[in-house]
Amino acid sequence: MAGGVGSRFWPFSTNKQPKQFLDFLGTGRSLLRMTFDRLEGIIPTENIFVVTNKYYKEQILQQLPELSENQVLLEPLRRNTAPCIAYATYKIYKMNPSAKLLVLPSDHLITNEKEYTKVINAGLDFISKEDVLLTLGMKPTRPETGYGYIQMEMGSSNLRKVKTFTEKPNLEMAKIFVSMGDFVWNSGMFLWRADVIIKEFEKYLPELADKFESGNDVYNTVEEQLFIDKIYPLCQNVSIDYGIMEKSSNVYVMQADFGWSDLGTWNSFYDISDKDGNYNVVNGNSLLYDANNNIVILPKGELAVVDGLDGYLIARNNNVLLICKRDEEAKIRQFVQDAEEKFKDEYI
Amino acid sequence: MAGGVGSRFWPFSTNKQPKQFLDFLGTGRSLLRMTFDRLEGIIPTENIFVVTNKYYKEQILQQLPELSENQVLLEPLRRNTAPCIAYATYKIYKMNPSAKLLVLPSDHLITNEKEYTKVINAGLDFISKEDVLLTLGMKPTRPETGYGYIQMEMGSSNLRKVKTFTEKPNLEMAKIFVSMGDFVWNSGMFLWRADVIIKEFEKYLPELADKFESGNDVYNTVEEQLFIDKIYPLCQNVSIDYGIMEKSSNVYVMQADFGWSDLGTWNSFYDISDKDGNYNVVNGNSLLYDANNNIVILPKGELAVVDGLDGYLIARNNNVLLICKRDEEAKIRQFVQDAEEKFKDEYI
Repeated sequence: MAGGVGSRFWPFSTNKQPKQFLDFLGTGRSLLRMTFDRLEGIIPTENIFVVTNKYYKEQILQQLPELSENQVLLEPLRRNTAPCIAYATYKIYKMNPSAKLLVLPSDHLITNEKEYTKVINAGLDFISKEDVLLTLGMKPTRPETGYGYIQMEMGSSNLRKVKTFTEKPNLEMAKIFVSMGDFVWNSGMFLWRADVIIKEFEKYLPELADKFESGNDVYNTVEEQLFIDKIYPLCQNVSIDYGIMEKSSNVYVMQADFGWSDLGTWNSFYDISDKDGNYNVVNGNSLLYDANNNIVILPKGELAVVDGLDGYLIARNNNVLLICKRDEEAKIRQFVQDAEEKFKDEYI
Repeated sequence: MAGGVGSRFWPFSTNKQPKQFLDFLGTGRSLLRMTFDRLEGIIPTENIFVVTNKYYKEQILQQLPELSENQVLLEPLRRNTAPCIAYATYKIYKMNPSAKLLVLPSDHLITNEKEYTKVINAGLDFISKEDVLLTLGMKPTRPETGYGYIQMEMGSSNLRKVKTFTEKPNLEMAKIFVSMGDFVWNSGMFLWRADVIIKEFEKYLPELADKFESGNDVYNTVEEQLFIDKIYPLCQNVSIDYGIMEKSSNVYVMQADFGWSDLGTWNSFYDISDKDGNYNVVNGNSLLYDANNNIVILPKGELAVVDGLDGYLIARNNNVLLICKRDEEAKIRQFVQDAEEKFKDEYI
């Protein structure tokens, strides 16, 4: 899944080049490319499909030149994760009804790739035998309020039935969740077989299922795009979590611990980043004086000179400079809206 | 005089393009060009000479295409204002010993050009008759601590003998100066005849005078540059103020009031600039939230989004972003030094 806009990281990410396409950690590879590379040895390249917005087709093919055009699924507009996953599922079902699907966001960070490989292989093994939905739950390392949590049924196994999904908790609640031991972070990574998830679509999102079933004759033909362009605007805007996962009684969670972050906010980026002696996260050349707890992100080759700031986010990209308090990063969406209202698409 | 580096305005000004070459006020003209244009009707174009560093020759000729190469005097290295003025003086003396000289910095701001013209013409008239040094003193409008002050002898005329030159005062002292009425700001603009100032050079800076006199045969010939390149490094690094003005007993000051600023600091720039409702000076597109008393200077076309800053300087140019407290702008020279030490000439 690589169709998101990532406006929370504006101006570092923009409509034209959202988060998944950026070399977020300065490693020389984008998050998308890192996600792709991580699948080496797990999924054959020809079995990797990317669903994205039409607008990003060229960027996908440029960053993942190994893919053929048929492996890049183009949404004419954004409709959240349920239609996105339905599209890929029905298309792949047509090729192989019992195909095992691994559904991944393209913009997450994973630091322990060996463990990741082990977990994914165990998950694929499980869903090849069981007609269930499997989600990956991350062992919580701190009372994070930026993630949803999944409560597992009692037991000692790393693989258990899901008891409940919960929304993002407040700090007090998050502390309780972490202390209880049966709560894990909802990572948004899923495993299931095509035939299994299609039954769930039919049960919980029947209208959506009907629409995508009606294309069974055109998937993997030249008419596919035209069909998708026609039905996509009619699809309900709904997430797979809300549409299926939270309703189905057939969901398992595999508890995993492979150094995961959804990189959903600047603060999550701050948490996972190396810091200098004054707790600043800086991505390039800098001269910092009396500066603590800041994030300073500039385009490559630029110099930041900062004196007298504590707890700020300083982010520059393209033609925009953003300076705000780190703990008010929730305002960034508002900034983007205001920029759009005042300056049209000049800066977003 | 157009050879300064203006590191106080870094990164807006840089070694490669110092303050005088910049369109500082977004008017479409550089300070140098504005200084040149201001002389129209006062000094014939062929009588305008610019002294600058060799490095800036092309920039001068580009911004002032009316000048011939002989009107651009090139210093091989910086030696402060006394050698700079001596060079121009001896060269011009060779053309016309009684030439009236108007000595001007190229990077000051003047807002009332009509009054300026009147004052300069009155000054030129005065020095054509009197064998004196004349300096322009600006009627102080506030207890500015960034300027030197000149005390005039008692009297009621706008043109009086100088009693003393003073260094930049502290605020308390500056308030006293302003209240007394006989103190004016030292603007660094001078008028005198070539024969008169040469006598002063001989008296107060005899070594310097000797050096430049020894070139009397080569000024305005093809050998001039070679001669200058040879003697300039041997010249004492001294200002005209310290070397002559403060020592001579032959100095008059003409009190003037034509909306002058030396634009010597970001705060002087702040003072003369238009402000928004929250006392921010912003030179381009911006979205400001909870932001007061700031200076925000970005390259044309860029957007600044600032939330939660009071009294800061935010300046971006080329590949450098500077953020510091406005009242600590004196540190900027240190920043420049540190940048040079750490990154060589990449950013300065």
